Amino acid sequence: MDTELLRTLATPNDTKIVLCVVDGLGGLPDPKTHRSELETANLPQLDNLAGDSVCGLTLPVDYGVTPGSGPGHMALFGYDPLKHEVGRGVLEALGIDFDLQSSDVAARGNFCTLDAEGKITDRRAGRIPTTLTVELCERLRQIKLPGVEVLVEPVREHRFVLVLRGEGLDDHLAQTDPEREGVEPLPARSTSQEAKATADLVNEFVRQAREVLSDQKQANGMLLRGFAKHPALPSMPEVTRMRAGAFAVYPMYRGLAKLAGMTVSPGGGTQESQLDALKSRWDDFDFFFYHFKRADAAGEDGDFHAKVLALEEFDKLVQQLRELGADVLMVAGDHSTPAQLAGHSWHPVPFLLNSKLGTIDDVDQFHESACRTGALGTFPARHVLSLAMAHAGRLMKYGA
Amino acid sequence: MDTELLRTLATPNDTKIVLCVVDGLGGLPDPKTHRSELETANLPQLDNLAGDSVCGLTLPVDYGVTPGSGPGHMALFGYDPLKHEVGRGVLEALGIDFDLQSSDVAARGNFCTLDAEGKITDRRAGRIPTTLTVELCERLRQIKLPGVEVLVEPVREHRFVLVLRGEGLDDHLAQTDPEREGVEPLPARSTSQEAKATADLVNEFVRQAREVLSDQKQANGMLLRGFAKHPALPSMPEVTRMRAGAFAVYPMYRGLAKLAGMTVSPGGGTQESQLDALKSRWDDFDFFFYHFKRADAAGEDGDFHAKVLALEEFDKLVQQLRELGADVLMVAGDHSTPAQLAGHSWHPVPFLLNSKLGTIDDVDQFHESACRTGALGTFPARHVLSLAMAHAGRLMKYGA
Repeated sequence: MDTELLRTLATPNDTKIVLCVVDGLGGLPDPKTHRSELETANLPQLDNLAGDSVCGLTLPVDYGVTPGSGPGHMALFGYDPLKHEVGRGVLEALGIDFDLQSSDVAARGNFCTLDAEGKITDRRAGRIPTTLTVELCERLRQIKLPGVEVLVEPVREHRFVLVLRGEGLDDHLAQTDPEREGVEPLPARSTSQEAKATADLVNEFVRQAREVLSDQKQANGMLLRGFAKHPALPSMPEVTRMRAGAFAVYPMYRGLAKLAGMTVSPGGGTQESQLDALKSRWDDFDFFFYHFKRADAAGEDGDFHAKVLALEEFDKLVQQLRELGADVLMVAGDHSTPAQLAGHSWHPVPFLLNSKLGTIDDVDQFHESACRTGALGTFPARHVLSLAMAHAGRLMKYGA
Repeated sequence: MDTELLRTLATPNDTKIVLCVVDGLGGLPDPKTHRSELETANLPQLDNLAGDSVCGLTLPVDYGVTPGSGPGHMALFGYDPLKHEVGRGVLEALGIDFDLQSSDVAARGNFCTLDAEGKITDRRAGRIPTTLTVELCERLRQIKLPGVEVLVEPVREHRFVLVLRGEGLDDHLAQTDPEREGVEPLPARSTSQEAKATADLVNEFVRQAREVLSDQKQANGMLLRGFAKHPALPSMPEVTRMRAGAFAVYPMYRGLAKLAGMTVSPGGGTQESQLDALKSRWDDFDFFFYHFKRADAAGEDGDFHAKVLALEEFDKLVQQLRELGADVLMVAGDHSTPAQLAGHSWHPVPFLLNSKLGTIDDVDQFHESACRTGALGTFPARHVLSLAMAHAGRLMKYGA
């Protein structure tokens, strides 16, 4: 259902909902064994939980659409990911735990190498070490622009985040990265009338940066892309009348939860320590988002075996998750990351919902083909939140 | 996904996609045998292909909606058929290979019989022979209207196409056919302010036509319906960044492909010769639309056995289709045409997609009830194109 209907129907209760997101959960069969990562892994706890749950497959965004982490999570948090887009600059800022404010415009930056004529010879500046990027970002912070604050944060290797902070900034800007070498970087160009002043500021920043970086051989230029503002989403805790807490090792996922208005627990540590943190905050929240990363990382590496091991690692946490005694416990994925593709994919993602009120189906294994026959069928991921709330007695009747 | 998102995500690749549309593919069980046309037919190649593919059922337009050929095909070409309507006049013009231009207004015409008071006594003019219609259309072409060109083309029996060509024409006109006898034909009436001048032109045409036809006993009047302009669809090749070629025996389907912006191979010949033409153009296109007609014709005739034979005839082409070596090979239908109904129907249509990246399911027969259990479930036909492009590595990730 859409946010406004959810707001209308949401009603408080003392029930608890736990959403475990296994990043990149779904996969594809190995061409030799014809078994997917989930089918290959030994998952006694997950299979047992599936047997006590209602199962299905979620469609993260739409048929054939491969989601990034942003839309994949936003859908599970109840937002239509096609209506609420999270820009790359914002995600990049979230990924380094940057405290983005609603009027900020953020962009992803690459240091690059320019020749004497100002033409790009290396779009990644030879992947300079992060230590140098830290130093160069410190220098860039000294740049002064009229009326706005300039924030520059290193990411990794040649990558950094540029944030302009001030009133009246607009993110309708085309990237300065021409996506090829042998040409000059493009000037920042406004794609709407309102963004003209912001484009001028960005171009002035780039001009001064050239001076600041003039002593550098490799990192003497920069490319900016993904100009974006905080998406200003309706607050999920406010809409759903649930106190919501997020528990994630990595900053990107804490950032996404923060965009949704959740309270974000400190990051870092391990999956186990994040689960301990969740337990210690059991009385403080109604909705718990718990993020498990390793399955996606292994899939992205194209490492089938590592993904199998990551799933087995998650399986070992399932008993503890069940012992929390939530009224609704869900295991979901933000998207599939088949090792075969070494990247995200569009394939629907296994899902289970454990609750006293679930229609228990015949599925007693947690993998793609088993979940396909589950009682929930294949359904858009943006309905996960409302389904969970229904099972937790947190949605009123619609109509008399 | 909608056209604009598709345009954003589409990326070139060197992969090939083949879409075979078996017209009127789906059916209904014979009341005696309880087996549908597809279940009755002997389809070894299709069953084998289904075994190596991901299967499902497509919903051509919406629940309970029986599509005409226009919406049935437009959905498979990636358009939302409820947003992009192809008017009857346009379809009729396409059906005779008429080269419709973007400012033309086309209508379907019937010769009819009027009595001395101008009241309709036969809405089909006794189904006069086509030869007479050809002659009468020649006469009607002599009619002069101020500022517009008058084009009149015979179709079959009492049917013809009227096209007005000129600037500023508008197709918001109600039909002149009262759909019953014993009353006079209606005047052409504009349903929007902009169409008033066009209505006047049509009425002047009808007035002059009465004079031209005054020596006729049966075909002394006309009824016009389905006034429509070229729908000016976004170009499918442009949106998807694929060179698209259409291979069809019959003009209607070539016309629909042309509306979508595809390159249309010469028509006529046989299913085999069209397949040979497709093979000979293998290097020229990325996307191939291959149309197979006979299943629909047999269904329309209410001839269950003929439809079974038509499906078996298609089955014999499947091996050649597989040998093309496309990255994505699909077999779809534009709608169901159950022999039992002797017409199109709203029933979901069997679908298969063969690709290295498909989730192979347990379906190893190609018919309605088998495909229902496929991994794709029942899904809107307008997602077929984006699914195919995903499997062909032709869509970028959505969001970061």
